[in-house]
Amino acid sequence: SSYSGWGNRRRNDMSNMTAQWRQLYLSRAKLKAVSRTSALIAGFAMVAMVEVQLDRSATYDPVLLIMFSTVTTCLVAVHLFALMISTCMLPNIEAVSNIHNVKAIEQSPHKRMRTYIEVAWILSTGLGLVLFMIEIALLIWLKFITLRPVNEVNQPTVGNNTTTVSPLLSSDAPAWVATAVLIPVVILFAGFAVHFYRTLAQHRYTIMEDAFNEIETMANN
Amino acid sequence: SSYSGWGNRRRNDMSNMTAQWRQLYLSRAKLKAVSRTSALIAGFAMVAMVEVQLDRSATYDPVLLIMFSTVTTCLVAVHLFALMISTCMLPNIEAVSNIHNVKAIEQSPHKRMRTYIEVAWILSTGLGLVLFMIEIALLIWLKFITLRPVNEVNQPTVGNNTTTVSPLLSSDAPAWVATAVLIPVVILFAGFAVHFYRTLAQHRYTIMEDAFNEIETMANN
Amino acid sequence: SSYSGWGNRRRNDMSNMTAQWRQLYLSRAKLKAVSRTSALIAGFAMVAMVEVQLDRSATYDPVLLIMFSTVTTCLVAVHLFALMISTCMLPNIEAVSNIHNVKAIEQSPHKRMRTYIEVAWILSTGLGLVLFMIEIALLIWLKFITLRPVNEVNQPTVGNNTTTVSPLLSSDAPAWVATAVLIPVVILFAGFAVHFYRTLAQHRYTIMEDAFNEIETMANN
Amino acid sequence: SSYSGWGNRRRNDMSNMTAQWRQLYLSRAKLKAVSRTSALIAGFAMVAMVEVQLDRSATYDPVLLIMFSTVTTCLVAVHLFALMISTCMLPNIEAVSNIHNVKAIEQSPHKRMRTYIEVAWILSTGLGLVLFMIEIALLIWLKFITLRPVNEVNQPTVGNNTTTVSPLLSSDAPAWVATAVLIPVVILFAGFAVHFYRTLAQHRYTIMEDAFNEIETMANN
Amino acid sequence: SSYSGWGNRRRNDMSNMTAQWRQLYLSRAKLKAVSRTSALIAGFAMVAMVEVQLDRSATYDPVLLIMFSTVTTCLVAVHLFALMISTCMLPNIEAVSNIHNVKAIEQSPHKRMRTYIEVAWILSTGLGLVLFMIEIALLIWLKFITLRPVNEVNQPTVGNNTTTVSPLLSSDAPAWVATAVLIPVVILFAGFAVHFYRTLAQHRYTIMEDAFNEIETMANN
Amino acid sequence: SSYSGWGNRRRNDMSNMTAQWRQLYLSRAKLKAVSRTSALIAGFAMVAMVEVQLDRSATYDPVLLIMFSTVTTCLVAVHLFALMISTCMLPNIEAVSNIHNVKAIEQSPHKRMRTYIEVAWILSTGLGLVLFMIEIALLIWLKFITLRPVNEVNQPTVGNNTTTVSPLLSSDAPAWVATAVLIPVVILFAGFAVHFYRTLAQHRYTIMEDAFNEIETMANN
Repeated sequence: SSYSGWGNRRRNDMSNMTAQWRQLYLSRAKLKAVSRTSALIAGFAMVAMVEVQLDRSATYDPVLLIMFSTVTTCLVAVHLFALMISTCMLPNIEAVSNIHNVKAIEQSPHKRMRTYIEVAWILSTGLGLVLFMIEIALLIWLKFITLRPVNEVNQPTVGNNTTTVSPLLSSDAPAWVATAVLIPVVILFAGFAVHFYRTLAQHRYTIMEDAFNEIETMANN
Repeated sequence: SSYSGWGNRRRNDMSNMTAQWRQLYLSRAKLKAVSRTSALIAGFAMVAMVEVQLDRSATYDPVLLIMFSTVTTCLVAVHLFALMISTCMLPNIEAVSNIHNVKAIEQSPHKRMRTYIEVAWILSTGLGLVLFMIEIALLIWLKFITLRPVNEVNQPTVGNNTTTVSPLLSSDAPAWVATAVLIPVVILFAGFAVHFYRTLAQHRYTIMEDAFNEIETMANN
Repeated sequence: SSYSGWGNRRRNDMSNMTAQWRQLYLSRAKLKAVSRTSALIAGFAMVAMVEVQLDRSATYDPVLLIMFSTVTTCLVAVHLFALMISTCMLPNIEAVSNIHNVKAIEQSPHKRMRTYIEVAWILSTGLGLVLFMIEIALLIWLKFITLRPVNEVNQPTVGNNTTTVSPLLSSDAPAWVATAVLIPVVILFAGFAVHFYRTLAQHRYTIMEDAFNEIETMANN
Repeated sequence: SSYSGWGNRRRNDMSNMTAQWRQLYLSRAKLKAVSRTSALIAGFAMVAMVEVQLDRSATYDPVLLIMFSTVTTCLVAVHLFALMISTCMLPNIEAVSNIHNVKAIEQSPHKRMRTYIEVAWILSTGLGLVLFMIEIALLIWLKFITLRPVNEVNQPTVGNNTTTVSPLLSSDAPAWVATAVLIPVVILFAGFAVHFYRTLAQHRYTIMEDAFNEIETMANN
Repeated sequence: SSYSGWGNRRRNDMSNMTAQWRQLYLSRAKLKAVSRTSALIAGFAMVAMVEVQLDRSATYDPVLLIMFSTVTTCLVAVHLFALMISTCMLPNIEAVSNIHNVKAIEQSPHKRMRTYIEVAWILSTGLGLVLFMIEIALLIWLKFITLRPVNEVNQPTVGNNTTTVSPLLSSDAPAWVATAVLIPVVILFAGFAVHFYRTLAQHRYTIMEDAFNEIETMANN
Repeated sequence: SSYSGWGNRRRNDMSNMTAQWRQLYLSRAKLKAVSRTSALIAGFAMVAMVEVQLDRSATYDPVLLIMFSTVTTCLVAVHLFALMISTCMLPNIEAVSNIHNVKAIEQSPHKRMRTYIEVAWILSTGLGLVLFMIEIALLIWLKFITLRPVNEVNQPTVGNNTTTVSPLLSSDAPAWVATAVLIPVVILFAGFAVHFYRTLAQHRYTIMEDAFNEIETMANN
């Protein structure tokens, strides 16, 4: 039975090593996905910022403008931050994974910096995509507000105020509809994210339980 | 015959393992295709949204504007959702497929999350492409509506209403033709999708039937 | 001679297997080429549609506008359809080609769906590129028509009609020249396509004939 | 010596096989380079066509406009044609090169269609790049011609014609300088192409001569 | 014990060789990341520079304009410099890493030019990304300043100066908010960079300490 | 000692072969880098040329315009020339490097055409990037010159000439600052290039010296 004990220990070592490599590959794949997605979306956000044309004759709602500038800045900052983490960590992980030395994995910084990888991951796929959806809603608002009939501010006509409300509403209708479509989508995004993390956690738990049961079975024999 | 039984079982195990790996590679290839297609089309949709120039002097149909904003939002949302699922699942599957350990496949989350992969797949190649075709039709409408002669709203001329109908129609003709071209195309898209899924299902059924027959033949010997 | 017969059969099996793998690789390479080309050209067509600026003061020929909207729609539809077929079939073929199991090829759907691959191929490289050439000719027409001197419609001057014909013609000259250049090019495209398919068919025939002769020679020995 | 003769023949076979594979790889690399370069430049040319803004108030030289439309059409046609050849031939060559069967090369269509590959190659890197340089010169002309002072056509002033010549010239000066820079560049391009093909031909000749000498030396022993 | 000494020396040699290869792979991965990130951001910065539309009727703050031109120039220069270093060094490193000769690493220039690699790395991911964030803040300022009500300079109205201050402030509010959002982000960037470099340094120290302890343990046995 | 002499010769052969392969890989990596960088920058330069909007009402300095057109043409020509060399040579080198035959390297044209590779390399990373920096300075000049107050040429006001000088200067200040920033950058670029080539040459000299010493040591034994 001392032999079987050694076998068990060796099997555990092997399984431990495999789990570590899997963790390394997972970190690398995550960082690569972060890098690709974040560079793309930061680029689109910046192009949108440069290309959008604010019309001086239109009367934009100050709240809308403040939201637009804040969301754009946050969107770019979030993705650039994720990109920075990814660009900083990837070379270190790739340098390890290129050496097909089983022991090299112990020198990999991916365990010590696991928090950063998770932060980059959540910023890029979680917060980043939700901000992107909100950015699109705000862009639609900025586009359709220019179609509002110009209010002659200098000569305010109090009397027909009630009559101009109707075209004003109708010109905002597309933006309202788009916003209405987006709200359930954002909720669905959040719901999927929560469900996904739960399923993954449960999946990991099942694997560990299986491994534990297997070890116990071996111990009992 | 106990040997042949063991051989059968082993062959089934091998064949089962191969089928699992094939399933894993299929999931990975699908998610990669989803990721590429969706990022591309979401980008194009956003560029179209930012670049399209609404002309204040033109009188857009409110229904057209509502449809445009709704379709654009849906298009971006559908592709971003598919992209999110793909970005979330791919690293987990790639981490497994990089370890050339035959047992590693049992720890892959792709079976438990198969529904998500199928959803991402159908959203990206099914609903997403159809929405893209509709978006293009709406863009053509928005473009050609600016060529309509301006209707002097303040001085409505009831008399020559019948005469202005003819240029109005002729300036909308390109958009009508484009729409007419698109309707059979969308039907063809849907038809192909249905036919494709049926052929694939039938193909899988044939393979399984062959495998079943083979097992039966072996059992009878 | 029974040994040599078995040898022949085995050689034929091997050669058959090689031919099947070659067919699989050919399908995969074709679908990849379709996917890359079609995504690129559909993107360019859509950007051209969004960016082209129709000038309200210019008098566009209705036939030109109808042709432009029809060709753009067809162009995008053709390439999206090819893209859809490619995106649907590629994962199935890649999943098979990743498993280096010689028997796996029998489960590949590429034989049953060969028609779709050929359709995608012809749509993308044949019809798609010809439509793209026509689109460019129409874009040149739309560009140069804005350089036509504005016809004062409200005050039609019948007398100097003959004198304005000359600048009208000269402003259309670049578009006419471009069209004249394109006609032989389109014919050359079609000619090359026909010649190419014939050469390829002849090439396949030669290979099969060689194989047949070889088999006959072996049978006679 | 019969053994050495067999050895020679076998060595020639091997060397012949290697030369064939090298030819196959060369064709594949050429077609890939053609595909990448041509897609890129055709795209840029089309974007330039769509984005360039012709100013109705400027008086463009008809010759300039005809040259611009002709060169743009030729540029796009040349690169699309090279792209088409490349897209048609690459899958056939890649399907062969993926099968690591030494005999498979005899079934490759790259020998029979060598003319097409050479045509695509010369169109894409030779004619295509020279046309691209000319296109840029024409774009600079179109840009700077809008800076010319507007000639009041309705009130032609014969007297100060000599005085307006000087600013007219100075506003065309940048375009003239750019053209002057381009002429030696185009000559240098052509010169390099000729020199390159000669050096390559001489290089091939040297290799073949070496091989011939080696064979002769072996034959004399 | 002479054998064990030889074993130690050999193990140290091996470990030294592995460390050198890891260093080579790390340099290569860093330069690749620098090359990709810098090319992307330099491109975006240049597009932003070309596309941004300065409005002649708006009264830009000279300090803002000077900052914008300086930051854009620095941004492009920093990334082009990083790109240049990367383009110069990568081929030399790749040529070494392609030869799977263990001794080849001693001929690699990456040790002698390590300073350049570190400089390119810090320029691209450190200074470059912070400058990019500042560029975006400045772009937002340039955009929203055009929404300021035009000050009639020729007819300065001293009296209602206090009343126009309020819309002036409100039109600048989005830009101020964006700036306020960016300041903590830039601090966070710097903080992460410092923390990241410290963690990495500590990580390397731990590895070296482990190696030292291991050697000592071996020496004592 | 005849054996050791044979060993030395064989080792020299091996080392010579390795050096040749390293040279081949270096040439290939250089050409690939040239191809990627040059295509990117030529594209950006052309987009800048098409997109930049010259304002007819602004009074551009003729020298500025001539410099802009010259630099743009040179920039595109330099990168296209480097791209052409790269596209012409790469397939020949790749065809050789794909055949893992040690003797194949002697048939590679990269030694005979080494001058072209060095020329492409220096054009693309040396001259090309410096021209790109100058292009950006000129683009900033073109942008900020449109913010100059319009000089009413028809009614020259001699009296307040001294007063208008001050806003004229202040509107040019951003461009002057950008130019001032660029001058040390260009010098730094040149300095780095010189230092880099020197370090590389010194590095090669050290390697050759080491090899020589090693050979001498072997000869003395």
